[in-house]
Amino acid sequence: MGVELLTIGTELLLGQIVDTNASWMAQRLAEAGIDVFYKSTVGDNWGRIEAAIRLAMSRADVLIMTGGLGPTEDDLTREVLAAVLNRPLRLDQAVLQHIEERFARRRVAMAENNRKQAMVPEGAEVLHNPRGTAPGLLLKSDGRVLVCMPGVPSEMKPMMLDQVIPKIRDVFGIRSRIVSRVLKACGISESTLDQRIGDYFREMRNPTIGVLAHMGEIHVRLTCKGEDPAEIARLLDDLEVKIRERLGHLIFGRDDERLEAVVGKLLRERAATLALAESCTGGLIASRLTDVPGSSDYVERGVVAYSVPAKQQLLAVSPELVRAHGVVSLEVAKAMAEGIRRQAGTTFGLATTGIAGPTGGTPERPVGSVCVALAWESGSGAREFRLLGEREQVKYRGAQMALEILRRHLLGIPMDEV
Amino acid sequence: MGVELLTIGTELLLGQIVDTNASWMAQRLAEAGIDVFYKSTVGDNWGRIEAAIRLAMSRADVLIMTGGLGPTEDDLTREVLAAVLNRPLRLDQAVLQHIEERFARRRVAMAENNRKQAMVPEGAEVLHNPRGTAPGLLLKSDGRVLVCMPGVPSEMKPMMLDQVIPKIRDVFGIRSRIVSRVLKACGISESTLDQRIGDYFREMRNPTIGVLAHMGEIHVRLTCKGEDPAEIARLLDDLEVKIRERLGHLIFGRDDERLEAVVGKLLRERAATLALAESCTGGLIASRLTDVPGSSDYVERGVVAYSVPAKQQLLAVSPELVRAHGVVSLEVAKAMAEGIRRQAGTTFGLATTGIAGPTGGTPERPVGSVCVALAWESGSGAREFRLLGEREQVKYRGAQMALEILRRHLLGIPMDEV
Repeated sequence: MGVELLTIGTELLLGQIVDTNASWMAQRLAEAGIDVFYKSTVGDNWGRIEAAIRLAMSRADVLIMTGGLGPTEDDLTREVLAAVLNRPLRLDQAVLQHIEERFARRRVAMAENNRKQAMVPEGAEVLHNPRGTAPGLLLKSDGRVLVCMPGVPSEMKPMMLDQVIPKIRDVFGIRSRIVSRVLKACGISESTLDQRIGDYFREMRNPTIGVLAHMGEIHVRLTCKGEDPAEIARLLDDLEVKIRERLGHLIFGRDDERLEAVVGKLLRERAATLALAESCTGGLIASRLTDVPGSSDYVERGVVAYSVPAKQQLLAVSPELVRAHGVVSLEVAKAMAEGIRRQAGTTFGLATTGIAGPTGGTPERPVGSVCVALAWESGSGAREFRLLGEREQVKYRGAQMALEILRRHLLGIPMDEV
Repeated sequence: MGVELLTIGTELLLGQIVDTNASWMAQRLAEAGIDVFYKSTVGDNWGRIEAAIRLAMSRADVLIMTGGLGPTEDDLTREVLAAVLNRPLRLDQAVLQHIEERFARRRVAMAENNRKQAMVPEGAEVLHNPRGTAPGLLLKSDGRVLVCMPGVPSEMKPMMLDQVIPKIRDVFGIRSRIVSRVLKACGISESTLDQRIGDYFREMRNPTIGVLAHMGEIHVRLTCKGEDPAEIARLLDDLEVKIRERLGHLIFGRDDERLEAVVGKLLRERAATLALAESCTGGLIASRLTDVPGSSDYVERGVVAYSVPAKQQLLAVSPELVRAHGVVSLEVAKAMAEGIRRQAGTTFGLATTGIAGPTGGTPERPVGSVCVALAWESGSGAREFRLLGEREQVKYRGAQMALEILRRHLLGIPMDEV
């Protein structure tokens, strides 16, 4: 059996919206052992949507559409699909109630045009959308399955994973699957990693291994094919053990684990608390750490000391120290970390000072120079980095290095192993 | 003439990497009046890459490839292309020097396998890559143009815009183009916007109009086709004026303008300074504002007062006030804004307190309740929001509303117009 993906929206063809849905869906389907044969995109145009649906019904067993389910005039998917299948649209009271409740929760009056999102073609199964107003639809016709989902990724993704994929596997009796696992490292180079585990590229056939550099991280991807989830998990576990033997604690996490969550978990396990003194990272470390639910248990406070007076007033960094070493220096970073730790009474103080750019660089300390310091009960340490990229990348990578330095300290790994 | 896009990398077919390059390139090409006929993806496999290149050479005038130019063993694009075209690979000294300099700047030793990134097929034009080690390549063969670019988006995108698209337009004498312009609003609903400018959907044919909701923003997209850039700009200007007549200052920006940059520009124009007191947004407002180059001129400091002691110690918020109204209240938000403004001696103090979730909600103040307050010389104001979404979305939307409240104050727009 084969799937066709159809993403709908003029903004995808002409505009600045990057169509991330089609490739995301293709990947999730591949993992579920479901082949994607065709991917296509059409604009918000009745004739072209109709032609695309008819073509898909002539060559695919499953058609998965996203987009065109919104309340505005250019949203046509529901209406075209009903017309092609000759199924009248009916108002679904349960869907209407769901939409009305969402507006009530936001304390906003529901506009009349939102009612059309509650229209459902006869015989369609409604796919509940807990994150938005437009429900998904699943129809069966002549042995084929047709699915519509909203184009908003945060609404489409859980609907795809929790409802659409299990139903397709069930209808077509699919048993095989592909499972990937990603091991993540930070602060070491892609080439170094390649030298340490390059032999596994040649040896391994199932699972296979790939290495990919992301911003401030290196990902080692293990990919395994099979039918039995337990057997796949065992093969992945075996290879993961081998790779961890070579890389040890340099691997900070797996799959969707984020560095800020890993650091948070380590702090929580040790009942430790953290205060931040950020200059060049501008609050990004605090923001990333507080993205993690429950982080208020260990993030006590943060200070963005962007100006020199703020550094003096909030962190007790002396003007003499700044004059002697420069504001971007290991010494000032340490004083910031020690200052915030003392003030907040936390287990750790973590500080950054640097030049995020695009201006402010000097021959001695070019744009991308970032000093990170950590203060703990019995001492402090600091390290200087030269980070590449634009301002936002320097901020992100600086935050990444700061979190990694804290993680390494918590696990007793040397701060400067690369 | 027609273009084929080929994205290369096993991680695109099977993995968790979303292929944003193909759709991004398709859109940029469409804007440049260049038709894309085919989009395909292959893994890091010699036979399949070779077959895909041969197929493209049989059906397209231009083949644009991304990926597979890295230093590791699974990167094959350069070698396969050289073999298909029967062009020997030669070491390019200028490219090698560029790679060596990048490693020297990062103070990292260059691994031997990075040398292969300096190998260039005979007769290829090297496309300079200021942001990475792997250069792009452009070859002409039998009237066709073949292009290879790195798969890393931040390296590929400037190469595509600055080098590849102008060269293709030049070779094939392309004159027409499609230009889009996006007008952005914040704090008003999609349905409201639709009601105010919905008649333009029906009237306008060139430019056309589309409305799209993004996280915490609404985008009105104007799309115009033509040959003469001045004529296109005139048509877009005319329609923009009409839309602004209906929406006024509710439109905060255009195209890539971000709310944090718009607010920064307004602060700079007024020689005003800002201090932040964040609770539920956890440093995100500070981080977004400091993403903007030069923001150190107006962002004086920020405080992430996550704990109640931090709110007292750093912002002088009295425990009595917290006890009387609750920590998430208009009163506490105002006290935070006034406290940080007084302490920092800035023109404005901006504060947030709320419940980002997933826990901590009450029947009275559910998850997503966010109070935003602004303090200025002669007073202060606050507004409460009920924001939908997961923790990170609540944080983002809370930051968005805080920035919008400051923007509206700076322009004299009522804080609560929706």
